[in-house]
Amino acid sequence: MGRNGLHVAVVGATGAVGQQMIQTLENRNFPVETLTLLSSERSAGKKVVFKGQEIEVQVATPESFAGVDIALFSAGGAVSKALAPEAVKRGAIVVDNTSAFRMDENVPLVVPEVNESDLTWHNGIIANPNCSTIQMVVALEPIRQAFGLKKVIVSTYQAVSGAGAQAIEELKTQAKAILAGESFTPEILPVKSDRKHYQIAFNAIPQIDKFQANGFTFEEMKMINETKKIMHMPELEVAATCVRIPVITGHSESVYIEVEKEGISVEEMKQLLKEAPSVVLQDDLAEQLYPMPADCVGKNDVFVGRVRKDLDRDNGFHLWIVSDNLLKGAAWNSVQIAESLLKLGLVNL
Amino acid sequence: MGRNGLHVAVVGATGAVGQQMIQTLENRNFPVETLTLLSSERSAGKKVVFKGQEIEVQVATPESFAGVDIALFSAGGAVSKALAPEAVKRGAIVVDNTSAFRMDENVPLVVPEVNESDLTWHNGIIANPNCSTIQMVVALEPIRQAFGLKKVIVSTYQAVSGAGAQAIEELKTQAKAILAGESFTPEILPVKSDRKHYQIAFNAIPQIDKFQANGFTFEEMKMINETKKIMHMPELEVAATCVRIPVITGHSESVYIEVEKEGISVEEMKQLLKEAPSVVLQDDLAEQLYPMPADCVGKNDVFVGRVRKDLDRDNGFHLWIVSDNLLKGAAWNSVQIAESLLKLGLVNL
Repeated sequence: MGRNGLHVAVVGATGAVGQQMIQTLENRNFPVETLTLLSSERSAGKKVVFKGQEIEVQVATPESFAGVDIALFSAGGAVSKALAPEAVKRGAIVVDNTSAFRMDENVPLVVPEVNESDLTWHNGIIANPNCSTIQMVVALEPIRQAFGLKKVIVSTYQAVSGAGAQAIEELKTQAKAILAGESFTPEILPVKSDRKHYQIAFNAIPQIDKFQANGFTFEEMKMINETKKIMHMPELEVAATCVRIPVITGHSESVYIEVEKEGISVEEMKQLLKEAPSVVLQDDLAEQLYPMPADCVGKNDVFVGRVRKDLDRDNGFHLWIVSDNLLKGAAWNSVQIAESLLKLGLVNL
Repeated sequence: MGRNGLHVAVVGATGAVGQQMIQTLENRNFPVETLTLLSSERSAGKKVVFKGQEIEVQVATPESFAGVDIALFSAGGAVSKALAPEAVKRGAIVVDNTSAFRMDENVPLVVPEVNESDLTWHNGIIANPNCSTIQMVVALEPIRQAFGLKKVIVSTYQAVSGAGAQAIEELKTQAKAILAGESFTPEILPVKSDRKHYQIAFNAIPQIDKFQANGFTFEEMKMINETKKIMHMPELEVAATCVRIPVITGHSESVYIEVEKEGISVEEMKQLLKEAPSVVLQDDLAEQLYPMPADCVGKNDVFVGRVRKDLDRDNGFHLWIVSDNLLKGAAWNSVQIAESLLKLGLVNL
């Protein structure tokens, strides 16, 4: 249609993920003609720089989405539930980074390296998966394709930025207080809206999101259910234990898998991962090379290392998977979905 | 024989574990008549208070062990290899907290709650297992006894104090530098004697001890091999991924197990753990109660929580196990072995 670019809206523009979305749109030189930045009343009026220009953040209302082509939502599930349908009604395609619609069977849940073609059946809303799920399926999908996949057991080491800017501040403030021998009162983690809050600095908290009736947390159930949906494998055995550790950004995962095919060597597994899209194999024991969260910050890739064959089961393998939870885990995957929509002609300039 | 107590020696008396051994001997009111404190030349001459009396630390030599009944070693594998046989030659029973003799088939490897009776066939040296192994087998042994045990997959979240006093200092110094925006040079972790050193503050390092030819670290192989030896289960499937996180004291473990018996409910599993020796069940989701390293410091128990049944396998369960790595993981288990030796009449007053 000859436009210079799309009208993009970012909802939750001042949050930890929203900020990364705006930065990623700029870094990728995504064709933006108009950028509308939206937030709650509390943050409205703030100014954010995009490509050298100051843009004022506005209060998000249904009318905000008039003329918007793509709306990237990351302002919490309640905001998405209220406003995403309004955006769709006004002709926008919503890429939603909350859990509001992920398990809705009318909503594709997309990691472009895994199931880009699910975008074709969208009904206005596309869900961006949970951060810890995304980095895991990027590493598991090439394995599924080559060797088949039967079972996944994951234990996570998750950064506080997954809980937002306030959690980052809380970790820093607590660490300073503890090092200075001063007292402090936990107020945000493990879950801001839950009843009790615990020390995160120099600690590990085995609760991310609220507990479900089956004893798993909602974060654990997200990893289990979203992995099956994204990989189109309702029969896949998946179990997760999700733990918050005192890292600012960068989720790590210790993953045990069993593949269908017998007789796969660790060299074949490493070669496969080395060639897999968006995966960087960091695995050289002589050089003490393996992924670490401190090294992944600001990068779009998924880093995989410590690849080894289980000592008891021929089809068992262990992996260590690390990625920037704000980028591939959130902002970059959302912008990547927007790029796929353009590429597939599902939105047009 | 009418003595008031035993002649006890602590080798490595100024280290992180040695200090806890001395404190634990005092806290338990272990019958000590003479306490000989030994170290390398570097630390000799320092004074340590035991039951209100100052004791000067002496350089450890073969002659240091004359008249010693029980010698608790925690000064590194090389010191144990050189001096433990000398201590035995002079009539002492050695409880060795290093990995020097653990897999020696003539040396019992003992966690009293699990295999106290292995003490009866000692030949002078008794090995204290690796910290992360001890807390795991304390929780797994009652499960093995009641339901049988087939498979264990563990991912650890280990504190820096397991790498000694210098590693504690390094974590604190790095955290301060990062919070102040200053630079720093890692020098100790992941392994002091290995070639490369990495940031531990606000990071996670998937290497504890050196890498073996099979791609596992020595720490991971310790967990695998020691678990089989302590539990007398050479056929048990065990896999481990060991990770250092920025916690000062308190190891955490995400453990997946498969039991022999089918049809065990999560309530039966919790009840069993609640009644198990040295285990404290902390598992009340409505109260957000689960074990955390910050809560376990200074306590001798093994804390277990997040007990839940696997969603795919009827005989699969997930556990979260936390304990003070310097106490049950090291000093307390060593003193507990000394108490067992007295109780079983293997050493006499």
